[in-house]
Amino acid sequence: MIDVEKVRRDTPACERVTHLNNAGAALAPQPVVDALTGHIELEATIGGYEAAERAAASVERFYPAVAELIGARPDEIAYVENATRAWDLAFFAIPFRRGDRILTTTSEYASNGIAFRQVAQRHGVRVDVVPDDEHGQISVDALAVELERGDVRLVAVNHVPTHNGLVNPAADIGRLCRAAGVLFLLDACQSVGQLAVDVAEVQCDMLSATGRKFLRGPRGTGFLYVRRDVVSDLEPPMLDLVSATWTSPDTYEIRSDARRFENFERNMAGQIALGVAADYASALGIEVIEQRVTRLAADLRERLTATPGVAVRDRGAQRCGIVAFTVDGSEPEQVRDMLRGRGINVSVTHGSELYDRNALPRAVRASVHYYNTENELDRLVNALAP
Amino acid sequence: MIDVEKVRRDTPACERVTHLNNAGAALAPQPVVDALTGHIELEATIGGYEAAERAAASVERFYPAVAELIGARPDEIAYVENATRAWDLAFFAIPFRRGDRILTTTSEYASNGIAFRQVAQRHGVRVDVVPDDEHGQISVDALAVELERGDVRLVAVNHVPTHNGLVNPAADIGRLCRAAGVLFLLDACQSVGQLAVDVAEVQCDMLSATGRKFLRGPRGTGFLYVRRDVVSDLEPPMLDLVSATWTSPDTYEIRSDARRFENFERNMAGQIALGVAADYASALGIEVIEQRVTRLAADLRERLTATPGVAVRDRGAQRCGIVAFTVDGSEPEQVRDMLRGRGINVSVTHGSELYDRNALPRAVRASVHYYNTENELDRLVNALAP
Repeated sequence: MIDVEKVRRDTPACERVTHLNNAGAALAPQPVVDALTGHIELEATIGGYEAAERAAASVERFYPAVAELIGARPDEIAYVENATRAWDLAFFAIPFRRGDRILTTTSEYASNGIAFRQVAQRHGVRVDVVPDDEHGQISVDALAVELERGDVRLVAVNHVPTHNGLVNPAADIGRLCRAAGVLFLLDACQSVGQLAVDVAEVQCDMLSATGRKFLRGPRGTGFLYVRRDVVSDLEPPMLDLVSATWTSPDTYEIRSDARRFENFERNMAGQIALGVAADYASALGIEVIEQRVTRLAADLRERLTATPGVAVRDRGAQRCGIVAFTVDGSEPEQVRDMLRGRGINVSVTHGSELYDRNALPRAVRASVHYYNTENELDRLVNALAP
Repeated sequence: MIDVEKVRRDTPACERVTHLNNAGAALAPQPVVDALTGHIELEATIGGYEAAERAAASVERFYPAVAELIGARPDEIAYVENATRAWDLAFFAIPFRRGDRILTTTSEYASNGIAFRQVAQRHGVRVDVVPDDEHGQISVDALAVELERGDVRLVAVNHVPTHNGLVNPAADIGRLCRAAGVLFLLDACQSVGQLAVDVAEVQCDMLSATGRKFLRGPRGTGFLYVRRDVVSDLEPPMLDLVSATWTSPDTYEIRSDARRFENFERNMAGQIALGVAADYASALGIEVIEQRVTRLAADLRERLTATPGVAVRDRGAQRCGIVAFTVDGSEPEQVRDMLRGRGINVSVTHGSELYDRNALPRAVRASVHYYNTENELDRLVNALAP
């Protein structure tokens, strides 16, 4: 069980705002804020490089902290400035060949879709969208059929889409990919920190995630997991003097671990604070976090469904802390602004991505975290009541 | 003239440490630190996205602030998380063809050299190192000869190398490149903030820089300048949903300005604070900054040269705030550690890069900024006196 009073005391802003925009950026707990500002102050006091040296243990703690949270090994983790770049660095490291196929899902994030096109144009790769099942998530049966048809180089799927509460069946996907010997890149931007993501269970080869969302870390932080067995097959699209060593004018050697995806310079305070955020989540227990987030969101869906004029738009057999809904006669932006005026933070999603033929409407996105309370859900639902 | 008392009051750590590691990371002035921590506190108080909305004007200020500092237009500036990535994004956007040549200089940064190799392997591009002139900087005459030989796609040169006080003749290089119709990528990581860099005068097509060094901005920040006339020829190696728009499942449109090199998520506090740092430099006047930095460094070289057992290792006809030296009978690391014990921050450079046949030795690097004083130089020289 989570001590809700305690985690709210750790998050002083909870008393001032009803923050239901955790899928945008969550409120960081005080230990994370303190790690961030503390290191910045240290840099201003003794110098940036000198501060990094003094805080070396905290910087290094990032790797085991993140690894423990997702069941990885520290040498499988790279610090990257955000989830998009983490995903990019993994994706563009794959040695595609003409005729290769990429399989993805209808709800894939637009940024990933654009990157697919870049690779398609450069290398003559084909992108195939696996249809949904009856729950609106990727069909595992259809995926199996596509894998059997061959030529699949990569399965790239989001764990949780940005605009919807559905959770894709990552472990089923991973099982099929592993059996087929196909690379599996999981975009876990919206799942790490709210769901118990375990890379051994999911069997993904690469996983990208951000700091600022459910993990409650700083903006401008993220990480990439790369499985030890595949890392040597992946040459990062851009190397530098820490990801590789210049061994002669014409040769270089790439680092053997996941840090081949890093580069020398970084927001050191951010890396330290993201490690603190991962440790904070692990100390609470990611399973109990998932239970509470999932239950709060389910409660919210139930109450919204019972509110006249409100329609919940989430799909999926399994659902997470993201709740998408529309209000009859109001644009999502109007609802968002009205709620903002009452001290309730939500956001607007732009509906389904281009791959989705059964497009969802633009919707309000309320995303709960474990520090939210039933009272806060009441506040939201009451504000929407006619 | 710079009001040294005032800039030192703005930098409280000046009273506690003699910071001569400005080529590593400078001490940020209080307005930069306040912008950084202030925005982080705001994020923790009202939410990350909500804080970005409220601070939208400060975020946007970054573009004209940086543009004004380097004589560019705001739409020619992209925020990037560091100089290496800024350089990478520009470099890997160039549509190289088999047989293209890249011209560079002996002192080019190792990270750039490794990236050259990546492109050489992928696209069959050749990298040619232009010899030095008698001052040890890139020979403008030799560059002209190489340009005339043809097939040159890119001239990629550092403005100031990482390990040496020399300033490469950027405007001469730019003039030749413009006349030859060849792209010119200037690595200005070590020059922006200490020298009056003006992109119109230099005539570079792309320029990469960092926040943390002489610009006195935060770690994990940087920017890329891309000249308006060339931006549409450069497809960034990794696009996302803000650098491009997904117009149909099979097509996308790239932003028309330099922000095509950005991506959605970033360290917002860092971007705001980097804008503040650029404004802080402009308010002092970049020409007077250059005068003071150059004069302090020249004084330091003179005093070090007069110190028995100390040898200054800088090359170049024009020299900047970086002073490289060795001490007879001591490893550079020993000197650095001895100085650190006396409250003086310097760093160690690893000598010349692989391209340099007349390799410099590993050396101590003392890098001055305008907030340093003659007294601080005395302190350094006295600590080195036998």
